Amino acid sequence: MVLPFDILEYNQRLKGTKQRMADKGIEVLLITDPANMNYLSGYDAWSFYVHQMMVIIIDEPQPLWIGRFQDANGARATTWIYDENVIAYPDYYVHSTTHHPMDFIAEILTQIGEGKRNIGVEMDHYYFTGKALEQLKKGLPDAKFHDGSLLVNQVRMIKSDQEIEYMRRAAKIAELAMTRGVESIRPGVRECDTAADIYYNLVKGTPEFGGEYPAIVPLLPTGENTSIPHLTWTDRPFVEGNAVIVELAGCYKRYHVPLARTVSIGQPSEKLQYLAPVVLEGIQNVLLAAKPGVTCGDLEEVWRKSIKKHGFEKEARLGYSVGLNYPPDWGEHTASIRKGDMTVLQPNMTFHLIPALWFNTDGIEISETFRVTETGCEQFTNYPQELIIRDHLDLSGQIS
Amino acid sequence: MVLPFDILEYNQRLKGTKQRMADKGIEVLLITDPANMNYLSGYDAWSFYVHQMMVIIIDEPQPLWIGRFQDANGARATTWIYDENVIAYPDYYVHSTTHHPMDFIAEILTQIGEGKRNIGVEMDHYYFTGKALEQLKKGLPDAKFHDGSLLVNQVRMIKSDQEIEYMRRAAKIAELAMTRGVESIRPGVRECDTAADIYYNLVKGTPEFGGEYPAIVPLLPTGENTSIPHLTWTDRPFVEGNAVIVELAGCYKRYHVPLARTVSIGQPSEKLQYLAPVVLEGIQNVLLAAKPGVTCGDLEEVWRKSIKKHGFEKEARLGYSVGLNYPPDWGEHTASIRKGDMTVLQPNMTFHLIPALWFNTDGIEISETFRVTETGCEQFTNYPQELIIRDHLDLSGQIS
Repeated sequence: MVLPFDILEYNQRLKGTKQRMADKGIEVLLITDPANMNYLSGYDAWSFYVHQMMVIIIDEPQPLWIGRFQDANGARATTWIYDENVIAYPDYYVHSTTHHPMDFIAEILTQIGEGKRNIGVEMDHYYFTGKALEQLKKGLPDAKFHDGSLLVNQVRMIKSDQEIEYMRRAAKIAELAMTRGVESIRPGVRECDTAADIYYNLVKGTPEFGGEYPAIVPLLPTGENTSIPHLTWTDRPFVEGNAVIVELAGCYKRYHVPLARTVSIGQPSEKLQYLAPVVLEGIQNVLLAAKPGVTCGDLEEVWRKSIKKHGFEKEARLGYSVGLNYPPDWGEHTASIRKGDMTVLQPNMTFHLIPALWFNTDGIEISETFRVTETGCEQFTNYPQELIIRDHLDLSGQIS
Repeated sequence: MVLPFDILEYNQRLKGTKQRMADKGIEVLLITDPANMNYLSGYDAWSFYVHQMMVIIIDEPQPLWIGRFQDANGARATTWIYDENVIAYPDYYVHSTTHHPMDFIAEILTQIGEGKRNIGVEMDHYYFTGKALEQLKKGLPDAKFHDGSLLVNQVRMIKSDQEIEYMRRAAKIAELAMTRGVESIRPGVRECDTAADIYYNLVKGTPEFGGEYPAIVPLLPTGENTSIPHLTWTDRPFVEGNAVIVELAGCYKRYHVPLARTVSIGQPSEKLQYLAPVVLEGIQNVLLAAKPGVTCGDLEEVWRKSIKKHGFEKEARLGYSVGLNYPPDWGEHTASIRKGDMTVLQPNMTFHLIPALWFNTDGIEISETFRVTETGCEQFTNYPQELIIRDHLDLSGQIS
């Protein structure tokens, strides 16, 4: 078995997690977020559509993995957890109205004497359902439950050099997919054709390293739909005059580097021509301001002042901490670049800065993913930032 | 706006949902499952990574959509819900530790006088978190909460002719992606290269209609990993003698038709040669037995007897109801083809029959997706069922 990180790095992550558990009075942490399971153990499989869990016990060196019988081999194959700590529930617990996996898990915790302790659960994480919470509470009536949401995510915020290296590879994949995707956009080509080109490159990766599935599919809103960021592609053909927003992320070892650009097929609208420099100036100002010691809220203020000069305001946050993840989101749900966020930037924090502007019938997205360095910040991708214009030369097939 | 179904069909779905609500004493149903939101309203966007909801009130003709401000345009664009029933929460509710979207939603329900009724929530569905449940309970102290899990899923089980037509298109896409994927498997090609070919075809679709993202990524376990169904691809090259399992689904208008095959690169192992006819015979026996009036449990018995003759037993379920879905699963979580499942087959129910056998170091998967007809069943895809052998002729590039 080859783990993506040194065992010492996993030990460090576990130590950081236990430190935070101790701070919050949590003795047993039940981890159901696939990214957090991966972060601490290496576990990597598309098995999060059934209930599964990693258990961290504050005074035990080894975690437990508990999941479906047919997935237990995957836990043995992809983690550093001892085989005897991989515990499987039978298949009749899967999508059943009579047997719930959390009943099985509660029984295991009781059997090993952990059922009466201070137990943390990831209350607001994907895949930890209301029912899961209720069944655990029923099965462990003597436990004291605590909200362990974002506990591991906080540990994840500052990346190691190896994690940064994986993000650099993800960045190469993002550049490649953006290049090929933009090249394919022309009148008559369908949105799904371009999405296919993008996906092909995201998954194939480079000759040196392959790509993985991103936690969000490539988004490709077109025409009026550029006002709606989260619609996915259709099979309608592009037409001359359309604007197209391309938002994608390269992914390597589950680490993401997102990248968004706005493309005009032929001459851009006057509005887009006016908006693009405003957004670019704002991005440059934020990137110039980003350095250790500054808060996420400070960055928002820089952006706000920058666009206010031109008469714009933005409703949504500008960005968020990014890295390791599984569907449905590549964001880490810790720091957001928005008003009032007091997160202090530290070296090797990583953010997706996506200060999109959306209006009623159009919008613009240009983004950069960056790493905080010792003295400032560094972009992961190297892709022209301006509004991309697919002119007649491009459209005739000769790509510049 | 073009909805994928006639408004009468949406009305029918809503009526079926309200009937089941009445049966269970639920007056207000809070729907957070993206597939159920889509099924009842048409809503289709990758926005389920933030909290969002559809509200069905038993004595109101119009549902509500409640979600993030930047997604509200998408609700207006993709649903039949009146614009005034699309309600947006501000962005500071997103991934915040101080503001929870369910607090906002509880306030809306209170304001419109629905806060003291019998409220159903989808307790065990993806994206309805433990925290969401707790915040709703806090915000609506006078409501009586009921478990509305699977309520809409039950309505979804019997497909309309239009849904079947969409699944037929998904089947065409599945055949295409399987054909191209299998063709690309040969020594020296990396798993990610084949996954890229598969994804390309799933998304591009046919010249007549485009494909969409499947709810589960293509799975491609190889070599020893064929014992582990849910590992995703790596960038390791295939080698002669490898077995490869390909499990994928075509997707059209969010309707899925899954298809799995097992491929041997060069001469298959004796074990695979022995297993394949056992599985094929079992599949044929199940398909012959599937017809209205038979239960899912009956089908399992047919399978069990069929493989027992050869000395095999299977731990996991053989299949499940399939159709409309979003990540992380294309299964509908209602009927499972397994011992004791009393679901009675009815015309236009649709199942993925995937009676895989997994051992310690290998496994075999061959699957069919079928529709129950008036008198029996009908397969969606037309793809050779047997173990696929990539022989030297194939491997030299001349595909038969």
